Amino acid sequence: MNRWIEAARKIAGVDPFWREKARERLRQQTRPEGSLGVLEQIVERLVAIQKKERLRLSRKRILIFAGDHGVAAEGVSRYPREVTPAMVLNFLKGGATINALARHVGAEVLVIDVGVDADFEKDPKLIQSKIRKGTRNMVAEAAMTERELDQAMAAGWDAMSRAKEEGIELVALGEMGIANTTSASAIVAALLSVPAKEVTGRGTGLDDLGLERKVDAIQKALALHQASLTDPLKTLQCLGGYELAALTGAILAGASLALPMVMDGWIVSASVLVALKLNPAVLDYLFFAHQSHEKGHKLLLEKLEAEPILNLAMRLGEASGAALAMGILEAAARVYNEVATFSEAGVRDRER
Amino acid sequence: MNRWIEAARKIAGVDPFWREKARERLRQQTRPEGSLGVLEQIVERLVAIQKKERLRLSRKRILIFAGDHGVAAEGVSRYPREVTPAMVLNFLKGGATINALARHVGAEVLVIDVGVDADFEKDPKLIQSKIRKGTRNMVAEAAMTERELDQAMAAGWDAMSRAKEEGIELVALGEMGIANTTSASAIVAALLSVPAKEVTGRGTGLDDLGLERKVDAIQKALALHQASLTDPLKTLQCLGGYELAALTGAILAGASLALPMVMDGWIVSASVLVALKLNPAVLDYLFFAHQSHEKGHKLLLEKLEAEPILNLAMRLGEASGAALAMGILEAAARVYNEVATFSEAGVRDRER
Repeated sequence: MNRWIEAARKIAGVDPFWREKARERLRQQTRPEGSLGVLEQIVERLVAIQKKERLRLSRKRILIFAGDHGVAAEGVSRYPREVTPAMVLNFLKGGATINALARHVGAEVLVIDVGVDADFEKDPKLIQSKIRKGTRNMVAEAAMTERELDQAMAAGWDAMSRAKEEGIELVALGEMGIANTTSASAIVAALLSVPAKEVTGRGTGLDDLGLERKVDAIQKALALHQASLTDPLKTLQCLGGYELAALTGAILAGASLALPMVMDGWIVSASVLVALKLNPAVLDYLFFAHQSHEKGHKLLLEKLEAEPILNLAMRLGEASGAALAMGILEAAARVYNEVATFSEAGVRDRER
Repeated sequence: MNRWIEAARKIAGVDPFWREKARERLRQQTRPEGSLGVLEQIVERLVAIQKKERLRLSRKRILIFAGDHGVAAEGVSRYPREVTPAMVLNFLKGGATINALARHVGAEVLVIDVGVDADFEKDPKLIQSKIRKGTRNMVAEAAMTERELDQAMAAGWDAMSRAKEEGIELVALGEMGIANTTSASAIVAALLSVPAKEVTGRGTGLDDLGLERKVDAIQKALALHQASLTDPLKTLQCLGGYELAALTGAILAGASLALPMVMDGWIVSASVLVALKLNPAVLDYLFFAHQSHEKGHKLLLEKLEAEPILNLAMRLGEASGAALAMGILEAAARVYNEVATFSEAGVRDRER
């Protein structure tokens, strides 16, 4: 595991010089200072990540990591396990919600199979990095071996590196995996040391009994793996899904390569938490798309000191919130690039 | 004034039949029921307004109503009055924040001059409906005559009717007018019967002394016109700007013509308040773009039972929040139109 700790250690936060440069230009544009609120904060950070006079966000890619979960056997999801591969096919055919949203914001969608319990035909939109057909059941054993964790993180790292090589300027991260809210809740409970109940929600729509089963499974897993849960990577190995591990790898890569990244909801945030435990400087490269309706996300965002851009009571996953937020980031960039300054427009600024 | 009361009375809320039709299609699409939260509520209402099997929002127009204010003489704004015409020219040249945002969402921008203290040359993006070069000072007399109020409302009505005739499918409403937050605060204080202080903010960035002057001016105006403030249209006449009156006229027209409309921030909401006092059914046609950072907007939105889509601490006006929200509405429409159903995609739905 040392290579991930090493990679995380090398990540540095963004340069305050470029933040100040961005602030200066924002101040000169024809509107009252600070009047764009969060959009201005977005711009400052984007400029500090890209280190350019003008922002470039037109080449956008959405990465959806997909995997199945052994813990699904505990009856923790309202949907059957075969929905994971069916939805992957739906993504590839362009029929899912994320595809419509991706077309709206002009982003391409790539799916990375790191652990789906099915075989897929070759497809230009599919990166085949399957580690195993689903994780082991975390209630009975570690969800993955140390080697599998390493492979999954590498799959995420590679997908992000490839995006950078191919000239992508903004990446959104999302996931698909029946039962993966269970995995995310377990990781968050472990790493924040909060009771499982506080961070376990209804996922795709569990009833009260289902929710009880889910909390119960998480509690069992937390008890079983207790000795490993002080270490963030071991926690990911014991409780994670392959897609969650891949997300953590992708996040570390994006921060290392200075790629601005938009985080989707609850599950992605759990992967963020692991990355931030390795190095809090990663936060500088992350934009949190929205506060998910899933229970616990508000608390987690607060702990991460993350400001969600949207709050639309969404709880779908598959990068849907992240795609919407990409549009907001691009709008902010456009304002920064295109709005006239007071002197260009001949508008009298207020006295400073 | 009878023609406005009459027009308002004829407005009916949207058809629940079409809402139910929308809900049914949303339920069949490949994702857990209700998982798109606010986007689904947006879709339901859009479908009920447009009464079509598929939504059409590609033809978008942003209407910015501009006017000057007599009350500016009281020192209630940090910017000098000549900023109003300067910013109108900036809008026409495409150099303002709203222009960058409009390009981002693919909307055209039209400016309607209902009371700017300057003469403009002909411009295809400018509708010349000037009533007077600025309102009268509401601290000393009614801001406008009854006839001027009627003219201003008609200018708004006409701009919206023209949009409908020209095939526009979604309209955003915004404004420009130095000192118009003062007018908006006065109207809201009057019609909600709350103290001026509670609904008066710093506008473009007033300091403490400036804010005191502003509250003071509003209190004087409220005292002077007290006898008229039980009637919403008389309130608009005494305290309004021409652009605020035009906005109310535009809103009534849009609701009459079943055009979905996106409301910008604080000032537009004050015009909405007048329209809703005439007929609460108007609310069905309005989408509230964002909760402005301007003090009082949160309270006003609550009173209007309006759910803002975004909350980005913006306080610029000029339809900037509305333009951003147009993008969210279009994204929601795209999801509704394009996402496959469970049976189309061969995805097993959960048991119902």
